[in-house]
Amino acid sequence: MLAEIIRQNRLKKPLIHCITNYVSANDCANLLLGCGASAIMADDPEEVAEVTTMCDGLVLNMGIPNPRKLEALLIAGREANRLGHPAVLDPVGVGSSALRQEAARQLLEQVRFAAIRGNATEIATLVCGTVAHRGVDADEQNDATEANARQLAQETGAMVIVTGDTDMVTDGHTLHRVRNGHPMMRSVTGAGCQLSALVGAYIAANPNQPLQAALAAVCAMGLCGEIAHRRLTPPDGNASYRNYILDAIYHLTPEILEEGANYETDC
Amino acid sequence: MLAEIIRQNRLKKPLIHCITNYVSANDCANLLLGCGASAIMADDPEEVAEVTTMCDGLVLNMGIPNPRKLEALLIAGREANRLGHPAVLDPVGVGSSALRQEAARQLLEQVRFAAIRGNATEIATLVCGTVAHRGVDADEQNDATEANARQLAQETGAMVIVTGDTDMVTDGHTLHRVRNGHPMMRSVTGAGCQLSALVGAYIAANPNQPLQAALAAVCAMGLCGEIAHRRLTPPDGNASYRNYILDAIYHLTPEILEEGANYETDC
Amino acid sequence: MLAEIIRQNRLKKPLIHCITNYVSANDCANLLLGCGASAIMADDPEEVAEVTTMCDGLVLNMGIPNPRKLEALLIAGREANRLGHPAVLDPVGVGSSALRQEAARQLLEQVRFAAIRGNATEIATLVCGTVAHRGVDADEQNDATEANARQLAQETGAMVIVTGDTDMVTDGHTLHRVRNGHPMMRSVTGAGCQLSALVGAYIAANPNQPLQAALAAVCAMGLCGEIAHRRLTPPDGNASYRNYILDAIYHLTPEILEEGANYETDC
Repeated sequence: MLAEIIRQNRLKKPLIHCITNYVSANDCANLLLGCGASAIMADDPEEVAEVTTMCDGLVLNMGIPNPRKLEALLIAGREANRLGHPAVLDPVGVGSSALRQEAARQLLEQVRFAAIRGNATEIATLVCGTVAHRGVDADEQNDATEANARQLAQETGAMVIVTGDTDMVTDGHTLHRVRNGHPMMRSVTGAGCQLSALVGAYIAANPNQPLQAALAAVCAMGLCGEIAHRRLTPPDGNASYRNYILDAIYHLTPEILEEGANYETDC
Repeated sequence: MLAEIIRQNRLKKPLIHCITNYVSANDCANLLLGCGASAIMADDPEEVAEVTTMCDGLVLNMGIPNPRKLEALLIAGREANRLGHPAVLDPVGVGSSALRQEAARQLLEQVRFAAIRGNATEIATLVCGTVAHRGVDADEQNDATEANARQLAQETGAMVIVTGDTDMVTDGHTLHRVRNGHPMMRSVTGAGCQLSALVGAYIAANPNQPLQAALAAVCAMGLCGEIAHRRLTPPDGNASYRNYILDAIYHLTPEILEEGANYETDC
Repeated sequence: MLAEIIRQNRLKKPLIHCITNYVSANDCANLLLGCGASAIMADDPEEVAEVTTMCDGLVLNMGIPNPRKLEALLIAGREANRLGHPAVLDPVGVGSSALRQEAARQLLEQVRFAAIRGNATEIATLVCGTVAHRGVDADEQNDATEANARQLAQETGAMVIVTGDTDMVTDGHTLHRVRNGHPMMRSVTGAGCQLSALVGAYIAANPNQPLQAALAAVCAMGLCGEIAHRRLTPPDGNASYRNYILDAIYHLTPEILEEGANYETDC
């Protein structure tokens, strides 16, 4: 079933409008081209509605925000909703400032998202409306994160993806725990931004199966992190690793994903 | 003759002021350093005129525009004209929004360009002043593109470069069709932006031979795409390919270009 | 002793707030992750104070300035001072425009820096308040640069780092001349920005030994340039070299640095 998600993406080649940040923009664009989609990037309020119109999906990344960019996120998000295009939210560092928290609040109020991806702290911040602090115990923390993910999905109607040691994907009811990935991915900047872009492509190509599409993206990214890690030679570090992950996305087939996806489902 | 273009560029090491976009800025800077030139990047109206003054050439890239950046493009372009420095225009996605179309209109009205580089749709949009739609038939389309390129060159006095399956370079009269390149270059983000930067360097180093310089840049970029493609091993994807193309630019000599350039000329 | 600087950095994993530029932002973030620190990037006046609060150190890079970013640099710098966090200044191209010179003047007036890193021309411009011109004789030039570095350190209380054929690190009294590095590093864009980020991490992890920390960073970056250069194969150019330098930073240990550091000290 995950195979079919990739197949549709390679077939339909969705054009994704990414409003992202300048740290990860180049990597997101190369990832989208590599997976078979393509990207257009615009971030000014004066043109984002028009650019959104010509695309099949929208990815809104809150990294390195400023008031003008935040206005653009809102305009593009509302336009995607009007057109029925799927929109993905990546609330990068939402707990880092009042500016980001207020931006997230407005985005969740004004835009209907097909998917939201963040780490445990970011998702907890969206749920609580205030910065979440780490729990004392890892198991308790894990339970709290699953509860947060389910709650956010139910409240927003979005597929919620939480990335961490184990990744979670939920529509508020079914919850998948994904075991793909490698700890070294934490040493590659923007790996989360890249995953959000991939979620955008897969959902745009499979609009009627958002949960499966989100799950496929999370498994694909983690699996490519594993494939890339096996390719490392002794002098390779995080810069080569970053390239190898993108290379693995480029070569990812429905069959490789079907065979390598590693997840369990909790209904 | 193309060899001489590169030789001059490596000898004179032109300093190029690039007003580009944050997706391709890092690649453009590394390409310019690799080819033997160097880059300075500034994009604010308050300083672009001064920065242009200290440079040998200017590249204006319309990607990810905003009103402040567009003002900077105009200021820098006029200053380059005043100083007699060559200016190159890359009308990225000019058909994507009214903002970009209006920007292109003002740039063509106020700045004299030594070269303009775009894909067939972008060049057609510049010629028609409105978004061009794809023709039904590939041959017809090709003829229309050549006619557009010639017309734009005649109207503006710029060398016009159209990149696609076959690249074209024309001064409005002579038209070169370049067969270098590899289809996989489409999976590398910003390959077009990089070529525009290279055109800027080659013309800045060869100001009296703009057609030859533009042709050399187009052949060089395509040839490096071929060289890089031959270097790919099975796990390499578009991220490694991107690095290999830049590596090939770094190692490109007058002799390699002279031997590998593949084009025909239509007078 | 340099070994201990790295050891502390890998142990404390400082979080560095980088206000940098979009050419080198991705490389700076990957370098910080690779060295064992981590990065958060924000550049808007509305949030930089808050972001600075959650970090251990601050790096202010003047590349691609605009008035809003410059306001953010000042706000973040003052906040770092208030909190006692070390702040590093990279006056990229300070001689290129009045905007940059005025920005540098305000930054030096309002912010106390733990370290300042630039090339000989940038440091001379900070000292003279006007653009410096190259001396006729290389030895004279070298003497002038050392004098400038010492003067700037004494006037500001910052460790001053001048990168060039030989790098210098001084607190105004002791001056280290670092012989690590490779000329090919000049063909990698943002190598200086990356070094400034590394200085920020090492000083944040060793706040009581700023001179040793700055020296360790300069030796580390140069040594990684040497290690990466030995790894080059014939088709590798500056793009692969850039990745190999970052890879070497990722693998750098206290022992490798201690053994490879190449400097002499002038008291």
